[in-house]
Amino acid sequence: MNYTKKPVTGMKDILPSESELRDYVKGVISDTYRSWGFTPIETPCMENIGNLTGGNGGDNEKLIFKVLKRGEKLNLADAVTEEDVADMGMRYDLTVPLSRYYANNENNLPSPFKALQMGNVWRAERPQKGRYRQFMQCDIDILGEPSNLAETELILAAGQTLGRLGFKDFQIRINDRRLLKAMALCCGFNEEKTGEVFIVLDKMDKIGADGVRSELTQMGYDAAMVDKYLSLFEIVSGESKITEAIEALKATLGDYPDEGGFENLLTIAKSVEAAKTADFELVFDPTLVRGMSYYTGTIFEIALPGLGISCGGGGRYDGMVGRFAGHDVPACGFSLGFERIILIMTEQGFKIPEVASPVAFLIEKGYPADKLPGIFAEAAKLRESGSRVLVVNMKKNKKHQKEQLAEEGYTEIKEFFKD
Amino acid sequence: MNYTKKPVTGMKDILPSESELRDYVKGVISDTYRSWGFTPIETPCMENIGNLTGGNGGDNEKLIFKVLKRGEKLNLADAVTEEDVADMGMRYDLTVPLSRYYANNENNLPSPFKALQMGNVWRAERPQKGRYRQFMQCDIDILGEPSNLAETELILAAGQTLGRLGFKDFQIRINDRRLLKAMALCCGFNEEKTGEVFIVLDKMDKIGADGVRSELTQMGYDAAMVDKYLSLFEIVSGESKITEAIEALKATLGDYPDEGGFENLLTIAKSVEAAKTADFELVFDPTLVRGMSYYTGTIFEIALPGLGISCGGGGRYDGMVGRFAGHDVPACGFSLGFERIILIMTEQGFKIPEVASPVAFLIEKGYPADKLPGIFAEAAKLRESGSRVLVVNMKKNKKHQKEQLAEEGYTEIKEFFKD
Repeated sequence: MNYTKKPVTGMKDILPSESELRDYVKGVISDTYRSWGFTPIETPCMENIGNLTGGNGGDNEKLIFKVLKRGEKLNLADAVTEEDVADMGMRYDLTVPLSRYYANNENNLPSPFKALQMGNVWRAERPQKGRYRQFMQCDIDILGEPSNLAETELILAAGQTLGRLGFKDFQIRINDRRLLKAMALCCGFNEEKTGEVFIVLDKMDKIGADGVRSELTQMGYDAAMVDKYLSLFEIVSGESKITEAIEALKATLGDYPDEGGFENLLTIAKSVEAAKTADFELVFDPTLVRGMSYYTGTIFEIALPGLGISCGGGGRYDGMVGRFAGHDVPACGFSLGFERIILIMTEQGFKIPEVASPVAFLIEKGYPADKLPGIFAEAAKLRESGSRVLVVNMKKNKKHQKEQLAEEGYTEIKEFFKD
Repeated sequence: MNYTKKPVTGMKDILPSESELRDYVKGVISDTYRSWGFTPIETPCMENIGNLTGGNGGDNEKLIFKVLKRGEKLNLADAVTEEDVADMGMRYDLTVPLSRYYANNENNLPSPFKALQMGNVWRAERPQKGRYRQFMQCDIDILGEPSNLAETELILAAGQTLGRLGFKDFQIRINDRRLLKAMALCCGFNEEKTGEVFIVLDKMDKIGADGVRSELTQMGYDAAMVDKYLSLFEIVSGESKITEAIEALKATLGDYPDEGGFENLLTIAKSVEAAKTADFELVFDPTLVRGMSYYTGTIFEIALPGLGISCGGGGRYDGMVGRFAGHDVPACGFSLGFERIILIMTEQGFKIPEVASPVAFLIEKGYPADKLPGIFAEAAKLRESGSRVLVVNMKKNKKHQKEQLAEEGYTEIKEFFKD
């Protein structure tokens, strides 16, 4: 026997206090999203390996935990590649399984289909502080809705959820892949090279405009072209109101074809600004790229300016579901950074609201067995009124026991003595 | 690209209606158990392979999904056995991970520790109707409590949970491994052979006393010994009251050492009968074996007599945690058969209670964008009052759309026309 106490490398045991917080947060997310008509779904944690390696996962495809074939299918003697020994893998996100799920169950799903998924995903990243190889994702997606009613609802619902979790003064930054493209093309960048340009642009918040300028010119791009490109972003940064920021860039690009990108952002901006119920600001960020190549239109990201980090994002990905379904299905999704939300709430000392104060019953050793039912009946009555009631045997060191119970939240204690 | 629509073999996509039921049931289970002072915990879905193959999993150890080693650790060229290519596996239950978790985190956990786990487990069983290779388990366990306060609370809490889910007239059948042993030894069976005797005894409900008699005699056991053994079970079946059934068997065994088994069952029976808040009967079933070899004392199982099936069970397993912790830790657990509960509730047409009736807003094509915020504001107000509100674009075939919405539960519909 070869037992180990530690969890597997890069994954963690979740202790009761964090677990309670996670359940609470999951509850708030689920309740809020369900009130918007999102319905929960579940997919298996494993997928056939071909679904995971088809190019929809970006770099995540390098991080797949593969599952060993079994029985006769496994032929180790002749195995050369990983594909010879593994035909399934652990999902690395919830978007690829959702696309497969929709294709598989389309006839039994409403259209548009508003899906809520909360589940673990696995990525074999290099273990580091705060990053784990198993982590929870919380996604809402609207499939089959081509209009930006989808974007508007996703942003409002995600914003409301964060607000209910106590987040304030956050931003939801928004952009459109079609504008990203138009901005680059109108400055003279080659369409086929926009990918590498966007990778540099994506660093704007870290290295600033000068950093972007120097990287792009080092890559061989003409200095005047790069200057023109960077000037576009300055136009926007001068405007404080989102609709004015969008209009300003629109005026500058003039008749340059935007494939409807500006109108899209303006409609979303007006609806979200007017209807939002949480304390967040919608910001037009033309430097927002979002890494995944599958995005086709609107993209968005939650920014927590005080902390300098993001805790969620998403966008429109009209192409992916069709790869599984065999026909086009418009799709748009918003993913909350669950683990980061938990981390922030923990660091900020969030306390879960309790309905009634928890009570601990301590039973002295030797308490007559025939009187125990009375204790259970009393506990049952308290539970019915919403209290959490812990029934435990009294320890020799009762003082220490009470201190520990207080730490667990049991401030009220009732003792049952044998005589 | 090699996409497949179907989920992996033996695992299933969970559609919205089942998913909603699952979430509801998880909520009832969690709320009830938490009111008893059980705290949620989570362990990674993968374990180091040595933890899964140490003999605590019985036949489940043959059904492990193993996870391929990665990077330099994987040497396919020299691989001979599965152990050469896989160092982790998917958990096949929640009890082994709990034992490791307790050993790993003991200093940060209260004593006794009341754990609530709800999570998926994986077993590569032969695919068959109603049995899946990924399924949910719901376990409560009390670690560090040697007295049968643990058993009593587990039975009462699990019974109350099933009651709240609408189950009625069910039984919780109870036995004690020490009595099983005493009954066999006092009839002359060899202690080392009790394992094979119990495997036959376990079939009593299927093949009856005559079937057990014929199997045991075919195995070479003396007919008189087998008859004496079977007569013990008849003594109990004549009694309708649980305490009298226990007392009757106790009187028959006389002074034969029971290691405290009778007293244990009597105490539990009296407390549970007096304090239960749900509509179940506690039944002494001396033929109850429970398959896992790790049980050391009390064992129990939920029986649904109308359906002839079980939907949960558990028992005391004082030896397992110590194998990880290096010192003895008493432990007792109760596992609800989550998937079976879902199946039964679905078949019985269970309806999830709704706080307020769900409303669908239909927006006509061409509805002015600047009036959309008003719709969102109206939806927000309804949501605040507890309603689920779906906002969707009106379809050309509105009649069909309304029918489909009604199927999803949206009986109330409000239309927004462009003029």
